[in-house]
Amino acid sequence: MNQKKRQRIVILGGGFGGVYTALQLEKLLGRRDDFEILLINKENYFVFQPMLAEVVSGSVGMLDTISPIRRLLPRTDLHVREIESIDVKNKTVTTTPGFRQHPNVIDYDHLVLALGNVTDFRGLRGLPEHAIPFKNLSDALYIRNHVIHVLEEAAIEHEDEQLRRQLLTFVVAGGGFSGVEVVAEINDFVRGVIRNYPQIDPAEVRVVLLHGLDRILPELDEKLAFYAQKILLKRGVEIRLKTRLEAATGDEAVLKGGERIRTKTLISTVPSSPNPLIDAIELPKERGRLKADSSLLVAGTDSVWALGDCAVVPLANGGYCPPTAQFAIRQGKTAAQNIVAAIRGGRRHTFKFKELGKLAALGHRSAVAQVFGVNLSGFLAWFMWRTIYLMKLPGWGRRLKVASSWTFDLFLPPELVQLKLTDSMGVSHEHFEPGEEIFHQGDLGDRIYIIASGQAEVVREEDGREVSLARLGAGEYVGEMALLNQTTRNATVRCLEPLDVLSIHKREFGLLAANLPAMRESFERVMTQRTMETRAALVAVGSP
Amino acid sequence: MNQKKRQRIVILGGGFGGVYTALQLEKLLGRRDDFEILLINKENYFVFQPMLAEVVSGSVGMLDTISPIRRLLPRTDLHVREIESIDVKNKTVTTTPGFRQHPNVIDYDHLVLALGNVTDFRGLRGLPEHAIPFKNLSDALYIRNHVIHVLEEAAIEHEDEQLRRQLLTFVVAGGGFSGVEVVAEINDFVRGVIRNYPQIDPAEVRVVLLHGLDRILPELDEKLAFYAQKILLKRGVEIRLKTRLEAATGDEAVLKGGERIRTKTLISTVPSSPNPLIDAIELPKERGRLKADSSLLVAGTDSVWALGDCAVVPLANGGYCPPTAQFAIRQGKTAAQNIVAAIRGGRRHTFKFKELGKLAALGHRSAVAQVFGVNLSGFLAWFMWRTIYLMKLPGWGRRLKVASSWTFDLFLPPELVQLKLTDSMGVSHEHFEPGEEIFHQGDLGDRIYIIASGQAEVVREEDGREVSLARLGAGEYVGEMALLNQTTRNATVRCLEPLDVLSIHKREFGLLAANLPAMRESFERVMTQRTMETRAALVAVGSP
Repeated sequence: MNQKKRQRIVILGGGFGGVYTALQLEKLLGRRDDFEILLINKENYFVFQPMLAEVVSGSVGMLDTISPIRRLLPRTDLHVREIESIDVKNKTVTTTPGFRQHPNVIDYDHLVLALGNVTDFRGLRGLPEHAIPFKNLSDALYIRNHVIHVLEEAAIEHEDEQLRRQLLTFVVAGGGFSGVEVVAEINDFVRGVIRNYPQIDPAEVRVVLLHGLDRILPELDEKLAFYAQKILLKRGVEIRLKTRLEAATGDEAVLKGGERIRTKTLISTVPSSPNPLIDAIELPKERGRLKADSSLLVAGTDSVWALGDCAVVPLANGGYCPPTAQFAIRQGKTAAQNIVAAIRGGRRHTFKFKELGKLAALGHRSAVAQVFGVNLSGFLAWFMWRTIYLMKLPGWGRRLKVASSWTFDLFLPPELVQLKLTDSMGVSHEHFEPGEEIFHQGDLGDRIYIIASGQAEVVREEDGREVSLARLGAGEYVGEMALLNQTTRNATVRCLEPLDVLSIHKREFGLLAANLPAMRESFERVMTQRTMETRAALVAVGSP
Repeated sequence: MNQKKRQRIVILGGGFGGVYTALQLEKLLGRRDDFEILLINKENYFVFQPMLAEVVSGSVGMLDTISPIRRLLPRTDLHVREIESIDVKNKTVTTTPGFRQHPNVIDYDHLVLALGNVTDFRGLRGLPEHAIPFKNLSDALYIRNHVIHVLEEAAIEHEDEQLRRQLLTFVVAGGGFSGVEVVAEINDFVRGVIRNYPQIDPAEVRVVLLHGLDRILPELDEKLAFYAQKILLKRGVEIRLKTRLEAATGDEAVLKGGERIRTKTLISTVPSSPNPLIDAIELPKERGRLKADSSLLVAGTDSVWALGDCAVVPLANGGYCPPTAQFAIRQGKTAAQNIVAAIRGGRRHTFKFKELGKLAALGHRSAVAQVFGVNLSGFLAWFMWRTIYLMKLPGWGRRLKVASSWTFDLFLPPELVQLKLTDSMGVSHEHFEPGEEIFHQGDLGDRIYIIASGQAEVVREEDGREVSLARLGAGEYVGEMALLNQTTRNATVRCLEPLDVLSIHKREFGLLAANLPAMRESFERVMTQRTMETRAALVAVGSP
């Protein structure tokens, strides 16, 4: 028996599915050494997803929701890398290079796909550029910092009332579990810290939840959903039912039907779809997810296993597993048993599990829950939610820390520290909708815009009249004048059709223009030409 | 009296000096309303600087060292903005624009300059590009995440032993207070978490402290400095005295005299110089700092006050105030009293203060201290250090949280979560020293390099022989082939003279090439030409 080669089990993904598969494999490994476990994840920690929304409001510390994978899985080899490709035919996984620029190819004997799903904004106008997803820890931290940032700006914006109201408007799209939890936490947080901003009138704060169906929380009983709606309304959340997001810009949420809500904070928890890596694998799928049998083996293979949100797993009594942590955890256990059975020989287990219950937190010591068929709501549900999650957190140390955070949170005011850790990207995509201005005459110029698609109009105000100077389309750029001459914008650029631009900050533009002679020359040529054309246009309409 | 216009006191900087000036002003304001206080800081929090090094090792939580300024200073108007310029003649301060692209000009009656100092790498070869400063909270978090990142990479680097050792080498330049504290914390942290990385041999870890003088901690008594050196050596820190950093690259710390230490982690706490904004002010200075009198008023003005690390303040018994928090706090108090005296009338106070003591933490429950002339070291000094700082932390809530963090730290293992919050900058400067390779034949290509200054050589290995293909200088670029053709590097580029490049990631390069026809054409032209030249060179040396 021992002459058999040691088998390598490679697990992709460090969420509930992947981590619990590895945990069970470590247990089954025991003192034998007939297989090794390798887990690939882009972070070195496991996120306790159900608590992520609380990171936004700061009622748990930002590290309290996560556990280092190395501590959880001492006998698993961890590769903290992005996955580049999966080759099922040759049984290899390729990860991105690290400090050494070499492809990193890993062989496997058994592959566990637990890649979860992602919020996928592709194909939605302006969402990839301007909507904030809520999926990972970095999203939660980003949202938190962004919310504090707009509050700081609203506090010093006394001149432009429209902008101040826009800064104080927060829009969340998607009324499922995560949308409801995040809107509740943002609402609690903003209305809680607002008293530290005496310059802001609390009545100006607007928190909006958009949901496509006729009630929120479709995962729960109707009665509980109505209770949740009532609670949220009472706390000041505006719920817009049967309302969908159609497009987004840096200034507005555009709703289906044409209504626009001016906001600088648009979060969208929808649409959700499997990890793009799953798209690229040539294995049987259903609605984009891998088709696994009741032993978690992917149809047509003998070494690829799939579980969690990226898989479709049949239930014994018909139907399929819902995409929840409870199921992913139990699936991981079964998958581990079956992989070991495949290596050592033995009978395969069939996945069986009856859901315990469902919970959604509503912020501020309130929740709705459905446990063993019983509906709970209010403080009792919230307290149960806290207790269950606390016991489910891996490790006593972490439980202790989280419990102490929660205790402090009962009597200490919420944190309002804004951590500026990310530099604004120098080169980025932006989207504009018709009627919006890319910039306004007289503004300070700090970016140049290259039009990728759509149409814009350049107009100048002279003595109260507006003179149209030019129309711009794909491949043309605008905004370079103010940058090269270090002055304010000498015209307004307004969007005529939905417009996608590449926007470059003056810092990066300066670097590029200084180092790329071809680029500088081309910009200078266009500038000279534009100056002449402008003069001609203004002469034609009788301006000096 | 009440017909007088309300005076506006504008404070620049939210460190010890600025915050304690505002605290004292709020006290003196009382129920009167004859002045208003406005503080401008680029963060919305105050950093308790003495604890910053502990954020690196995680022995205090990352938010435990900071306090929201709005909570500390409820009657002060806070502007969270960068300062663009100071106009002493017209009594205005201009801050960067926020969401609205308009200049933001603030009038003042009294101006308090408490801008501290910065770590200034300008003029030092490669340091601005590759050395990590240790000054702000974001630096501390960056260092922490970076250290975990290199550990994760070292754990999976089995092929390239030189790279693994480079990843496990940590170099800190500057043996003053902050350099010693940060090297002690990094050393503790790395040696503490290494057991979670069974793939890494602890003997491969190297932590080096570089210091220009013949002993560390020049601020302290010789005896204490020797004690500190002994402790650090015992814990495994390599101390290199009379050794200065001459240059830095992405791969090496270059020492004066030519020795090079291969490392991916180079932190430098030197040189320190006043905030660049102080440079630009036309007021009397001494060694770059503002010359204040013993009432904290800047010489020759009646409305500009300066204190803390950006000012030179005379002491009653001769000499000048050292740049420490203790002095900044007391200076803030005196400045506030004198500003109020200037507004309301009254006698000015003279700054007087005798230092209480000096402390440096050495990590792992050890410190050195000099208090009222008495020298302390070891656990006693450490315990005193903790207690004093705890009592100095603003607010009981925070004290409680920090105390509980410290308690957990006594029995829980250190965190090893790596928070990836920053995207790698798409466009950045890099520096290379002679002999280093910009990239190697066969590497994967993910960046293009535009040479700003210096010389490089392009060589190709063919059948074990190295053929020189070209020499490149300022304005030329290299690396575009692998990017445009999506292949590996087909040659090695080696640095001949110190080389400064602008490096662009393939993502940003793709965006630019797709949207800027002029740029794409210019690159394609050069590519065609190079392919032909390469063929000619290889034919000349007899390769196919």
